[in-house]
Amino acid sequence: MASTFGQLFRITTWGESHGGGVGVVVDGCPPRLKLSEADIQPDLDRRRPGQSKIVSPRKESDTVQILSGTFEGRTLGTPICLWVKNTDARPGAYSEMKTKFRPSHADFTYFAKYGIRNWQGGGRASARETVGRVAAGAIAKKILRQQFGVETLAYVKQVQKIIADVNPDKVKFQDVESNIIRCPDRTTAEKMIRLVEKMRQAGDTVGGVVEGLARGVPAGWGEPVFDKLEADLAKAMLSLPASKAFEIGSGFGGILLTGRQHNDPFRARGGKAFTTTNFSGGIQGGISNGQTIFFRVGFKPVATVMHPQDTVDVEFHNTTLKGRGRHDPCVLPRAVPIVEAMTALVLVDHALRHKAQCC
Amino acid sequence: MASTFGQLFRITTWGESHGGGVGVVVDGCPPRLKLSEADIQPDLDRRRPGQSKIVSPRKESDTVQILSGTFEGRTLGTPICLWVKNTDARPGAYSEMKTKFRPSHADFTYFAKYGIRNWQGGGRASARETVGRVAAGAIAKKILRQQFGVETLAYVKQVQKIIADVNPDKVKFQDVESNIIRCPDRTTAEKMIRLVEKMRQAGDTVGGVVEGLARGVPAGWGEPVFDKLEADLAKAMLSLPASKAFEIGSGFGGILLTGRQHNDPFRARGGKAFTTTNFSGGIQGGISNGQTIFFRVGFKPVATVMHPQDTVDVEFHNTTLKGRGRHDPCVLPRAVPIVEAMTALVLVDHALRHKAQCC
Amino acid sequence: MASTFGQLFRITTWGESHGGGVGVVVDGCPPRLKLSEADIQPDLDRRRPGQSKIVSPRKESDTVQILSGTFEGRTLGTPICLWVKNTDARPGAYSEMKTKFRPSHADFTYFAKYGIRNWQGGGRASARETVGRVAAGAIAKKILRQQFGVETLAYVKQVQKIIADVNPDKVKFQDVESNIIRCPDRTTAEKMIRLVEKMRQAGDTVGGVVEGLARGVPAGWGEPVFDKLEADLAKAMLSLPASKAFEIGSGFGGILLTGRQHNDPFRARGGKAFTTTNFSGGIQGGISNGQTIFFRVGFKPVATVMHPQDTVDVEFHNTTLKGRGRHDPCVLPRAVPIVEAMTALVLVDHALRHKAQCC
Amino acid sequence: MASTFGQLFRITTWGESHGGGVGVVVDGCPPRLKLSEADIQPDLDRRRPGQSKIVSPRKESDTVQILSGTFEGRTLGTPICLWVKNTDARPGAYSEMKTKFRPSHADFTYFAKYGIRNWQGGGRASARETVGRVAAGAIAKKILRQQFGVETLAYVKQVQKIIADVNPDKVKFQDVESNIIRCPDRTTAEKMIRLVEKMRQAGDTVGGVVEGLARGVPAGWGEPVFDKLEADLAKAMLSLPASKAFEIGSGFGGILLTGRQHNDPFRARGGKAFTTTNFSGGIQGGISNGQTIFFRVGFKPVATVMHPQDTVDVEFHNTTLKGRGRHDPCVLPRAVPIVEAMTALVLVDHALRHKAQCC
Repeated sequence: MASTFGQLFRITTWGESHGGGVGVVVDGCPPRLKLSEADIQPDLDRRRPGQSKIVSPRKESDTVQILSGTFEGRTLGTPICLWVKNTDARPGAYSEMKTKFRPSHADFTYFAKYGIRNWQGGGRASARETVGRVAAGAIAKKILRQQFGVETLAYVKQVQKIIADVNPDKVKFQDVESNIIRCPDRTTAEKMIRLVEKMRQAGDTVGGVVEGLARGVPAGWGEPVFDKLEADLAKAMLSLPASKAFEIGSGFGGILLTGRQHNDPFRARGGKAFTTTNFSGGIQGGISNGQTIFFRVGFKPVATVMHPQDTVDVEFHNTTLKGRGRHDPCVLPRAVPIVEAMTALVLVDHALRHKAQCC
Repeated sequence: MASTFGQLFRITTWGESHGGGVGVVVDGCPPRLKLSEADIQPDLDRRRPGQSKIVSPRKESDTVQILSGTFEGRTLGTPICLWVKNTDARPGAYSEMKTKFRPSHADFTYFAKYGIRNWQGGGRASARETVGRVAAGAIAKKILRQQFGVETLAYVKQVQKIIADVNPDKVKFQDVESNIIRCPDRTTAEKMIRLVEKMRQAGDTVGGVVEGLARGVPAGWGEPVFDKLEADLAKAMLSLPASKAFEIGSGFGGILLTGRQHNDPFRARGGKAFTTTNFSGGIQGGISNGQTIFFRVGFKPVATVMHPQDTVDVEFHNTTLKGRGRHDPCVLPRAVPIVEAMTALVLVDHALRHKAQCC
Repeated sequence: MASTFGQLFRITTWGESHGGGVGVVVDGCPPRLKLSEADIQPDLDRRRPGQSKIVSPRKESDTVQILSGTFEGRTLGTPICLWVKNTDARPGAYSEMKTKFRPSHADFTYFAKYGIRNWQGGGRASARETVGRVAAGAIAKKILRQQFGVETLAYVKQVQKIIADVNPDKVKFQDVESNIIRCPDRTTAEKMIRLVEKMRQAGDTVGGVVEGLARGVPAGWGEPVFDKLEADLAKAMLSLPASKAFEIGSGFGGILLTGRQHNDPFRARGGKAFTTTNFSGGIQGGISNGQTIFFRVGFKPVATVMHPQDTVDVEFHNTTLKGRGRHDPCVLPRAVPIVEAMTALVLVDHALRHKAQCC
Repeated sequence: MASTFGQLFRITTWGESHGGGVGVVVDGCPPRLKLSEADIQPDLDRRRPGQSKIVSPRKESDTVQILSGTFEGRTLGTPICLWVKNTDARPGAYSEMKTKFRPSHADFTYFAKYGIRNWQGGGRASARETVGRVAAGAIAKKILRQQFGVETLAYVKQVQKIIADVNPDKVKFQDVESNIIRCPDRTTAEKMIRLVEKMRQAGDTVGGVVEGLARGVPAGWGEPVFDKLEADLAKAMLSLPASKAFEIGSGFGGILLTGRQHNDPFRARGGKAFTTTNFSGGIQGGISNGQTIFFRVGFKPVATVMHPQDTVDVEFHNTTLKGRGRHDPCVLPRAVPIVEAMTALVLVDHALRHKAQCC
């Protein structure tokens, strides 16, 4: 199904950027987990627009409500419905979109598919849909941390040509959150922020790379052959708005090495195996090998720019369209909690699948 | 499920590299399609080892049998079971693998997951599992071609540092098949072949990039929000043995452009929209826009090399292991039909899903 | 998944009897369908408590809100989230249930499964969960009617020993709604009502049979071999609270006939086939044959009675428990719209599946 | 999917009554389980035709081969493909079926759905498809027995009007297998056998009831709200050829009781709860309560009779058709292992689901 993700920890998101709100139903959450809105709100705050000068200034507090699935502060094992009301309804701001398709947005393709579209702010294709993912991901992260000792993290690795130096085995959450671009390499972070500000002033946008990781995953999670851990991560990441690329471990760069160079030698310590390099990115044959799992996601520059661009109207005549009002010069800092959420959702699902078959 | 792929055109592969054989059950195939082994065998021949001097010399004819789902040469609409017997059983060749984990193979992770593994030739993690995918993909390709006018194609785009120049809008199947590396840019193909031969002689291996495409896909296929067309393609490709990376359209390279540069302008012609550039790779918001869909898959160098490498044995003591006998210096020419198959499987599934909801 | 039903027209219900409310997410609804709350509210009114003197007097208006998936009065093709707030919170009324398991309710089994339960009014196991089903079913019924010419209907066929005489080929919605027990055989309906009133006064409860039907289903819907139409109907009906039995066509009664007597002879008329009897209940080999589909669902007497009954407390000591306040002497009249909803959900799902593979 | 059953212990059957054979792929089987053909063959022998004078005399040995998923006598955790070759091909015997639809068979509905059918012996709708279910069920039964201490059993409860007296808490496998009708009440069994023989001689057929049970299921298996244990059992049973009805515990008969009479009182013993009656059939709110689970499945009389019956031909003209050669006067003794298999498949799936979420 289009709007459902996961096999055993299964989320179904719903909602459009304009309308009654956005939300998610989480089915399969283990019972008796302590859970309140306070577990979820911080990640939504990291995702929401208006949090800093370099992201979209759209004003929404994105306050989450738990509508079902908990009782006296604990999960019941039954579906958890989370709801975030829409509050920033400015229909007037979108009137031009009623008759014109924005280039490199989903306006045209939704119309081609459904013969109808919510032209107010992108509807279902809006990045606002990721509210539900981040909310569900906050629960997944808590389960991973408490029940499996697994930590998930993401950060900005690259903005256009500016690349950060980060060690996936050691980087900390606090380092990521220490600046508004969410790049733990502080010197590079400053350069990135300056570039994004320049883009914002120019009414243009810029893309980059978010690196995600999971530490503490035991060997054995992941499924042959289609539901390989990296395959589910790839799907999760390519399902994000504006993402165009995914690579795990050595990724495209690994192509430049030969097999002898690229293989990760095993060594033994205390009756357990580890690898001395990690070109595999913590996964071999689709199954975790106990090393840090890390991968990179490429995001294109945001499509809305403050300049007139060629496009067509809904009656298929040539026209132009210029973004107006406010724009998001760089999606990356807000993509960080989303990548984290999707990583956690993939991992908790595989943790439960592993438990069912192999434990 | 681990071994099932697709929602409406659903395949379940089964089998290990050693044992009774490998195969696939295809459920959801439209009825009354002409189908015989002759529709499937050619793609299996493109996938099988021993087809040229630059691939694994393993000798298997990979002859397919249709066990169910057809009657008088046509599909019944019921599950089609395809079976390819294993004939190249040389248990002796693998005896060292019984006690040692090959580096960067799935030996260790399968053992960590299941506490048991078929150590003869990789078992379920063997590339031999892709026989079932290619067989099912041949059916998917036929449906796409006959019922939807869609053509799927793949070819070698890069071997290590050698990059071919190919136009996804125009490249032809015959060009791909004109040489043993399956690169339609013939001059570059020769360089690639020389590099692979050098690697084979050195007992080493080399990776690269396969580019896949689909032409003729109408606007409207694909689903918001998790089952985006590119998300399902990414999952399909990252589920392939040795793949480490996926990018669609501009991919990681698109990061270097600004939004103004990267957006694909729409123009109208004959009451229809098209884009004058295709950085989107034919998909916007997860849904096809009518342009050529194209993407690249990065494959690491094959792990089996003819040199001793550090590893551990099954009792977790340090040891070394050296590949022996025969090895596959470059997986790319054989990966081409596999990428084609997975592309077709994703597309036919989405064609049926689109039909169900929107037509 | 526990809380998801359907393959292509897929519903996910959520919510407990006490808490933020109950609801449903409908994914896979065709786009451009006219839809507002007014299409859904009437069926919720038929389901809600307090609608007549013979059902539970719980006071809830069950007002539905559409939170997503529509725009300017039409469906977008994206998930439709429907929400009904809980308004009748009387936690005091349930305090004894905190420490005691009600006999033949799900209190004990939920606790055994999850180690936690919402003891206020049954939580997730409450009949209140069916609000989401009925709301989704109203959409399914509209699609069936408008796009496929299919009518679904249900009515009370039996209360304890009182059996109504109804012709599934001819019975009308107005006849069903002509009395508070929802039995279209008016003379029998009066007897049923008198029996239920007697039970209510005695603080006891009574069960019976709801018959469901679908008219106008073309030959060809349904899937071999596990997702037979009658198999999906059986699952749908046995997933209802208090249901214990399902039979289609001749059902258990057909056992008394021999094969010669039971077979439905085909006859031809105008180049089409029909059967002169309908012991098959409109389905053969899991696939509709064009005749009226009809089946019966057996509901046990409601478990809450106004008399002390033996049970155990949460520390597993013997005790007794007596229902208090208000009780529902007969679930049948309110089960009618629920059976209709589930019938419609099964059929619209199969309509879409048929479209995908066979049209 | 049409041919797939189960969420975590997932089977996909394939094959027609005529063609390369019938089989099943089992995905999700726990690793390291001892498994060989000898574990499976006995149940296939109980299912096969020709095993006694009162069942279909079709001659097939139904010899099973394991094609994948095991290694050195143990399961690998990967898909297990089981294959039974077809050997009794007598195409001539079915030539009349090429042009005529058999009444109350699936000939007409398959043709209506697919526009094509395998007219040799029923194709996919043949009871021969259940070979795959029984083979998979044998694995499920072994897992339940060894890993969960659960026993599944079925037997003939009723043939036409002849009803056996059996105690679901005590009946033994040996009692079931002590006679050819598979009814553990021996006196009644003899009457049943005489009736079936009479039917066979008369060229007619007779239906009845198979009762199935599971003992030793701990409290807590099953899922709210759609995947209730009884809902999945109902679906499993109604997916069997010739089944028309399902009831659990008190079933339709429970309707005659009032709530006070029907409720199962809880009592405590040794810190655990049990019920003193079992009208619930071992399941409350969709979840097992620790008592014996038992249910009944109604099978109509087999459709093939040795008398001319009215029908239509494939060009939709009236005609008659008479069964010829051999016929199966009563499906019940062969249905017993099939009901057992489906029961075990439902339970093992829920055992794994419970493990994943709640353990």
